[in-house]
This record gives sequence, C-alpha cells and structure tokens, in this order.
Amino acid sequence: MRYKLTVEYLGTGLAGWQKVPTGRSVQAALEEAALHFCGETVSVTGAGRTDAGVHARAQAAHMDLPRPYPPLNIMQGLNYHLAVCGFPGIAVIAAEEAADDFHARFSARARHYCYRIINRRPRLSLEAGRAWHVPWPLHHAAMHDAAQSLVGHHDFTSFRDSRCQAKSPQKTVVRLEVKRSGEEILIHAEARSFLHHQVRIMVGTLKLVGAGHWTAEDVRAALAARNRAAAGPTAPPDGLYLMKVDY
Amino acid sequence: MRYKLTVEYLGTGLAGWQKVPTGRSVQAALEEAALHFCGETVSVTGAGRTDAGVHARAQAAHMDLPRPYPPLNIMQGLNYHLAVCGFPGIAVIAAEEAADDFHARFSARARHYCYRIINRRPRLSLEAGRAWHVPWPLHHAAMHDAAQSLVGHHDFTSFRDSRCQAKSPQKTVVRLEVKRSGEEILIHAEARSFLHHQVRIMVGTLKLVGAGHWTAEDVRAALAARNRAAAGPTAPPDGLYLMKVDY
Repeated sequence: MRYKLTVEYLGTGLAGWQKVPTGRSVQAALEEAALHFCGETVSVTGAGRTDAGVHARAQAAHMDLPRPYPPLNIMQGLNYHLAVCGFPGIAVIAAEEAADDFHARFSARARHYCYRIINRRPRLSLEAGRAWHVPWPLHHAAMHDAAQSLVGHHDFTSFRDSRCQAKSPQKTVVRLEVKRSGEEILIHAEARSFLHHQVRIMVGTLKLVGAGHWTAEDVRAALAARNRAAAGPTAPPDGLYLMKVDY
Repeated sequence: MRYKLTVEYLGTGLAGWQKVPTGRSVQAALEEAALHFCGETVSVTGAGRTDAGVHARAQAAHMDLPRPYPPLNIMQGLNYHLAVCGFPGIAVIAAEEAADDFHARFSARARHYCYRIINRRPRLSLEAGRAWHVPWPLHHAAMHDAAQSLVGHHDFTSFRDSRCQAKSPQKTVVRLEVKRSGEEILIHAEARSFLHHQVRIMVGTLKLVGAGHWTAEDVRAALAARNRAAAGPTAPPDGLYLMKVDY
C-alpha cells in the first residue's frame, strides 16, 4: 500500500531532507518513525531534497507500507514516534492513500518555495534561524524587476551549485515575485523543479540588486554567462521554506 | 539621560519580563547588557510584565544612562552585549531619547496583545512554543461573538490571576477580536492595561466557546460572577505576543 505524506519541519539543526552518513535528516527520521510504526523497514521518498537548515511548510513524500492502515493512524503514529525518537521539529500534517504509480518526486507538477528576508538594522531574535537578516536597506521593487529576467525557460548553469547532479541545467521558472510587507521581504518562486541551490542563488543575486550593487542588466548577463561564478552568492538556508508541491 | 527602548524577544526558555531570584528574565538581561555598555548599574523599566514563555514583538521600556549616547549606539551596543551574555532571543529593535518624565509603564496609553492558536489535528513543529495547539475544531465566529461581552469597562475579577497585585479589578477592554486565517486563529486584545493573566484567561475562556462547551451567555455569567473559578482555564503562555505599546 502506497501512502502520500505531507510533512512540516523546522530545518534548524537538521541535516536536510536526504539521508546522510552523519547528521539528523528528515528522511531518516521519517524512516525510523515508520519502522517503529509498522515493524518493518520502510523507504520514504520526498518531492524536494531540501538542504540543511531549510524549512518546509508542506514537503510531500511517499512510502509503501506492508499492510494498509487508516491514514489518520499513520499520521498520528508517525508523529508519536517522531516525538519519541527526538524529532520535535518534524510533523506529519497529512497522510493519504496514493496510487501505486504515485511518486512524490517524479509525479510533481510544481514546487513552490518562499524565501524570507528580514530587512532591518537590529539583529533577529524571534526570527533567528527562520529568515535571512539583511541590515542595509533593500529596494524590493528593483529586485522584483530584475527577477523577471529569470522567469521562463533558461539554461540556469550560473544558478546551479557545483555539486548539482541534474542532467540538464535547463529549467522553467514559472514565478519569481518579490514583495515587501514592513521589514519583511518575501520572494516567491515556482517551477516544476529547481536545480541544486537554484532558489538560494537567485535570492543571493537579487539581494545584490536590492542593495544597489547590481542592475537588472547584470542579472541578465549572469544568466547568459552560463557560469556559476557569474551569479551572486548562495543565500543562507535559514530563510528558505518549501511551501507546497502540486501533483 | 532617559532613553526609550523597543524590545523584541522569544519568551521560550526565559523567566518572563521581570527580574526573579532564579531564572533568566528579559529585564535582568537588559540591565546586564546596559552595565557592560556604560559601565554603571542601570535600572530598566518595562511597559508590560510579560510572563515566562510569553513573547514580544515590541515591548517598550525606559532606562536612565549616566551620560548621553547616540541612540543607534545604544541599540547596537545593547544587542552586542545581549548576544555575548547569552541572550540570542532578545533584541533591542529601537532606542530613542525620551523626556525625563517618560515612564514606560505609567505613560502607556494602550497595550496591544495578540494570541495565536493553531487549530489542527497534527502536532506543531515549526510553531512549537510559538502558538497554542488546539487539535479539535474551534468555531472562531462564536468565539468572536462571545468576546464582545468582555469589551468595555468591567470588573474583571473572574479574569484575574489570584496573584494579581492590581489595586482595582476594573479595566476597560477596547478591542477583543477573533479572526481565522487557515488553521491559525488570532485573538487581538487592546486595553490601557490588563490584569495579571487577563488575556490568557480570556483566551482560555473563549476557547471553551469555540469548542462548543460554553455559550456567549456563559461568558457573560462568568464575568458577572466576579470569581476566578467562574471563568475558563488560563491559556498557555506560548501563544501570547505583546505586539505594541502606545504612548
């Protein structure tokens, strides 16, 4: 029986989604909870392999259980075992039956990310670890304008981490919006899929525009260069949230 | 020289605003930071004595320094020493010169609080410690209607902790609004001042209405009873935020 899970987590202190030899990953935590829940080894596959420190409001995942269970029992059971296993920052917020051919990663039609910048002079307290603190004023409208040159189908080699394993650097960014609400700048990004660190490199580059160091033309030139060194730095993971995955 | 401070903090793990013999309080943290900043003992007075676990977006406080300093230096200096002294969850977000007769507590014209409830079945992860988790469905419109009988000038003896030291139980609640946004219920409360635990007891009582255990008439009867035992339980501190103090 295949089940789809929706998972929320605080990335702070976690090694990211994917299982790693050392470190506490979300995938390993869910597999440990599932083992305690059903008594057998279970493999959990996620839609987005979020990095260490990146958060999720609604990561999607699938797993096959050896027997059918009521979805509500799966949700409550996994949450119980996550808490017992020492993962208070991870919660399964929905569980549902899925078709045998449902694949959290390959069936996804769109991934929605949101990146939070807190743009103010004093350091963060309430939002520490949950946003990127940029102390000098950012011009969000200039960031939004520059972002539009990254929307569409492009070769994103410049916006791809050197460790990225994707076969092609071609991606289609459907939406890249920059909005301000008081001291908070929110950057909404949507695509069928993103390259490794793509959202964070796009944000790190747009921040150069917001600070007045770069123009929209510089962003277009960085994209055209097809060279990671041509784009801006990778923004820290703290501000990034996987918001939703569409199927 | 008197200065007004605006202070933001995550209440989790703190003993509340007020200095206590044991425990890490916000007031003691600010006084320690101020001592390191100016080299002399400084007394810091806050507008609202928030309880342990209660958060602040914009607590107000005042202090007298032995010499004048540029306000920006005060803000940056206090934040530096707060971090060094092991208080990463407290930040001074503004500092400004104040009149000699400015008093953070007694000059306040209005205090604004917000209480957050996350109303969903699965437990919290991202919002753990930052909201009250109520797993059964709450009827927010019924809560809002019932809340209106607490607005106005009343004897709030029923909504006052037994340790409350205020001379009079009479207070004027200017605003008590209950709104829902998705799985989150926000309760906005405004008054010149509140009794000890008043907001949390009002929220704990309205939650009984939202769950269908109480009616608006029961809330009116609890208020009229002038007896703490007649109102609902005190809601946990996790969901409470001091949002703003007006002068």
